[in-house]
Amino acid sequence: MSLTLKEMAQISGAELVGDESFKPTCLCGLDKVIHGGIAYAAELRDANADANKDLGALIVPTKIKGQDISYKGNILYANNPEWAFTLIMRATTTLNKNIKREIHKTAVVAETAKIGANVAIGALSVVEDGAEIGEGTIIYPQVYIGRDVKIGKNCIVYPKVTIREECVLKDYVILQPGAVIGSDGFGYVFINKHEKIPQIGKVILQDDVEIGANTTIDRAKMNETVIGANTKIDNLVQIGHNVKIGMSSILVSQVGVAGSAEIGNGVIIAGQAGVSGHLKVGDRAVIGPQAGIISALEAGSKVMGSPAMSYSDFMRLQVILKKLPEFYKEIQALRKKYNI
Amino acid sequence: MSLTLKEMAQISGAELVGDESFKPTCLCGLDKVIHGGIAYAAELRDANADANKDLGALIVPTKIKGQDISYKGNILYANNPEWAFTLIMRATTTLNKNIKREIHKTAVVAETAKIGANVAIGALSVVEDGAEIGEGTIIYPQVYIGRDVKIGKNCIVYPKVTIREECVLKDYVILQPGAVIGSDGFGYVFINKHEKIPQIGKVILQDDVEIGANTTIDRAKMNETVIGANTKIDNLVQIGHNVKIGMSSILVSQVGVAGSAEIGNGVIIAGQAGVSGHLKVGDRAVIGPQAGIISALEAGSKVMGSPAMSYSDFMRLQVILKKLPEFYKEIQALRKKYNI
Amino acid sequence: MSLTLKEMAQISGAELVGDESFKPTCLCGLDKVIHGGIAYAAELRDANADANKDLGALIVPTKIKGQDISYKGNILYANNPEWAFTLIMRATTTLNKNIKREIHKTAVVAETAKIGANVAIGALSVVEDGAEIGEGTIIYPQVYIGRDVKIGKNCIVYPKVTIREECVLKDYVILQPGAVIGSDGFGYVFINKHEKIPQIGKVILQDDVEIGANTTIDRAKMNETVIGANTKIDNLVQIGHNVKIGMSSILVSQVGVAGSAEIGNGVIIAGQAGVSGHLKVGDRAVIGPQAGIISALEAGSKVMGSPAMSYSDFMRLQVILKKLPEFYKEIQALRKKYNI
Repeated sequence: MSLTLKEMAQISGAELVGDESFKPTCLCGLDKVIHGGIAYAAELRDANADANKDLGALIVPTKIKGQDISYKGNILYANNPEWAFTLIMRATTTLNKNIKREIHKTAVVAETAKIGANVAIGALSVVEDGAEIGEGTIIYPQVYIGRDVKIGKNCIVYPKVTIREECVLKDYVILQPGAVIGSDGFGYVFINKHEKIPQIGKVILQDDVEIGANTTIDRAKMNETVIGANTKIDNLVQIGHNVKIGMSSILVSQVGVAGSAEIGNGVIIAGQAGVSGHLKVGDRAVIGPQAGIISALEAGSKVMGSPAMSYSDFMRLQVILKKLPEFYKEIQALRKKYNI
Repeated sequence: MSLTLKEMAQISGAELVGDESFKPTCLCGLDKVIHGGIAYAAELRDANADANKDLGALIVPTKIKGQDISYKGNILYANNPEWAFTLIMRATTTLNKNIKREIHKTAVVAETAKIGANVAIGALSVVEDGAEIGEGTIIYPQVYIGRDVKIGKNCIVYPKVTIREECVLKDYVILQPGAVIGSDGFGYVFINKHEKIPQIGKVILQDDVEIGANTTIDRAKMNETVIGANTKIDNLVQIGHNVKIGMSSILVSQVGVAGSAEIGNGVIIAGQAGVSGHLKVGDRAVIGPQAGIISALEAGSKVMGSPAMSYSDFMRLQVILKKLPEFYKEIQALRKKYNI
Repeated sequence: MSLTLKEMAQISGAELVGDESFKPTCLCGLDKVIHGGIAYAAELRDANADANKDLGALIVPTKIKGQDISYKGNILYANNPEWAFTLIMRATTTLNKNIKREIHKTAVVAETAKIGANVAIGALSVVEDGAEIGEGTIIYPQVYIGRDVKIGKNCIVYPKVTIREECVLKDYVILQPGAVIGSDGFGYVFINKHEKIPQIGKVILQDDVEIGANTTIDRAKMNETVIGANTKIDNLVQIGHNVKIGMSSILVSQVGVAGSAEIGNGVIIAGQAGVSGHLKVGDRAVIGPQAGIISALEAGSKVMGSPAMSYSDFMRLQVILKKLPEFYKEIQALRKKYNI
């Protein structure tokens, strides 16, 4: 690594007590300390681990300043060590930094497409008629950008992403490989057989949205499917047509949200949970892994189970279910004793 | 929109009472009425909503003719308003209509491939030796069509679809982006380690099948994996090797069907449900969301839960599970009172 | 087929009693006997089925030698008929055998990439700077191989696979279509909004790993996500960042393993099950379909349910849950009788 501790302190807003000119050998975690590396400790007890002695530098919380730490090397004090470390990671990573800002000669870009300054379009990508790509956006190889798609500034679109016609990405959106934006919603009307209903709406991904690998987001039947600003969606998630998701929500891998559901702001949906269609999930609701949401949830709800119940009811039920076999024996004893 | 109400009435088989020459500004839904637009009401109460007054035209059920409707604009009477509206959507959408029927110069098409009349093959698609593509089929960019694949007439294959060697699509099949047809089935025999069993069968998609984005359908170990005519499969569904699915069945997103299962006609499998291998699911069975099917289901079954039980048993059990904590207290009171 | 029974006996190590020069018409299964074909019977009762009479040859277990079999045609005796049949399948399949070992003229291969002898790189694939591809490996069309990726010998990479920068495949790895190796892990720190943590680690797939279609394996935050030798992962599975999986484990379709979980050797995880983050699952554990693992599992555990419990507890609970409605009525009768 080429940064000194002084530079790392500046980048991360941390206070350095130690050798300003020292250059850590690498970034590492406390679970796998590497000689001369820099790591962070979220708490005092993490800072005190014996294995830390090999580190070149350690970021610790400012709040423990003055307390005795067994680690005797270079220390950086930060209000939030994880965040300080993240800022150093961002400054030092090479990911996405050496991408040539050019349209690769094998990309197939329509003449009517509008490409902003400082854009990269990778090999064998396709940009259809009327598409727009904003300044500073990186399109990796083998991406498909459909007719009249609008992509904002400073987005990153990884290989094999498909964005179908008319969909919209605002600024700073990241799409992991294989994500599909704007596939047809699942809509049919039964007239002797299932007859397809055209899905003529689109998808809008607001600023700073990230979409995971091979996740699918269906276009609306009419109007829009919307993912709100700063919402983060993991891999292999399914978002049905006309779903609306608010800001800064988290959807973990393999979650499914059925058509026309409305998810609020700051909601957390854990892995493999499902939300039925046409439901509202209030702001800051927390939905447990594998939960099945079949009725609306109020703001701040915390639920688990399939069908879902409140977290406290779920926990109480688990305790009783464990006792149920014993409980059953007691009932049988009662029946026998009282001859019922 | 360029169609008059007279033309819309003709297309949809509806009876117009109103201005024949009026051109609606757009198609819309009653949840988001747009000034001058045309929408449909499935029921009288939907027709009577105050917000409808801005509409340019409203499609209502023929059966309410003669009843008083608060909406006073142009009316189309249709036996099935949703179907009438769908026919107008189909007539007016631009999706898939302006695709140039040509082989793009960057597509890589084997000399031995047979391409029908009026076919489109998009940029950077690959068509391998011996493949056949029927009249009127649209292949979007970046599609892979393997050796000896047979594709029928009037299919639509969206970007990034992979169809591996020897698989068969009949007519009017639609494959959403990223779908994989003919990946190897998951088959091994353990001889000191897991030894791969070659998967030498194929996949057959019958007429009018639709497959969702990033859904995977494994080729058979031998013989065929078959999806019956008019069956519709949503996004991120997994179909194992040698599965047979009948006609006009519906598989919602993230469903998994394990190897050699047989699903009947008109079956509905809700989101995230799973069907174990080598089972039969009878015609018209309805399987609830997140259900786990571990034994055969008779025709007309309606089941929920994991493991699945009948819908009525499931509902009764949910009621009792809710009462279980209270119920537990009662037993303890009984024990105490009778000193058991 | 061009092989004689004598040749098939040699390939599979079976003992032939019958016509050495006979050439079976095809390979088939006992569920669909084809005239003149060769099939295998795992047990005596399978060998005795009436439908077998049309077969050209039947592989049976050596252990039944001397017992009376109703099938009177050519017999091959093998210690493990399935394995003998698999060896014949491998010898006769054309899959992956007629691939031209060349770099297709439309592939985009960086000058700094190192390509071994006898490698195939299909049409429209991309190989970035610094990538290495070992001897005998087949890269199908439309694959993406990122910067500094290392691929070993004799791997098969199907169409539409994405391998992001710096990831490693050892030898004999198979990646089904659409698999994504090295997507970013799902990591954020909340500082007024979700701030992305760069994911600077990689993925290592050890020898003889197979990854299913559209499965996603996230790169580590730091260090490595590792899939151990001979482990087999089915379609649409999600593996989070920093997960470690041991040798010869089996993960069935739609399983999810959250970040930093450690899965042992010889583990079996059935379809749609989920494993929470930072857990250890011991060697040879067996996890049932749709199970939810929220605490560590010891070696040899056998669990089901969500949340998971031991297989025996799960089965006992299912029995009691079925009786619960009746049981509830009894309690009410007791209450009434004793006026509680």
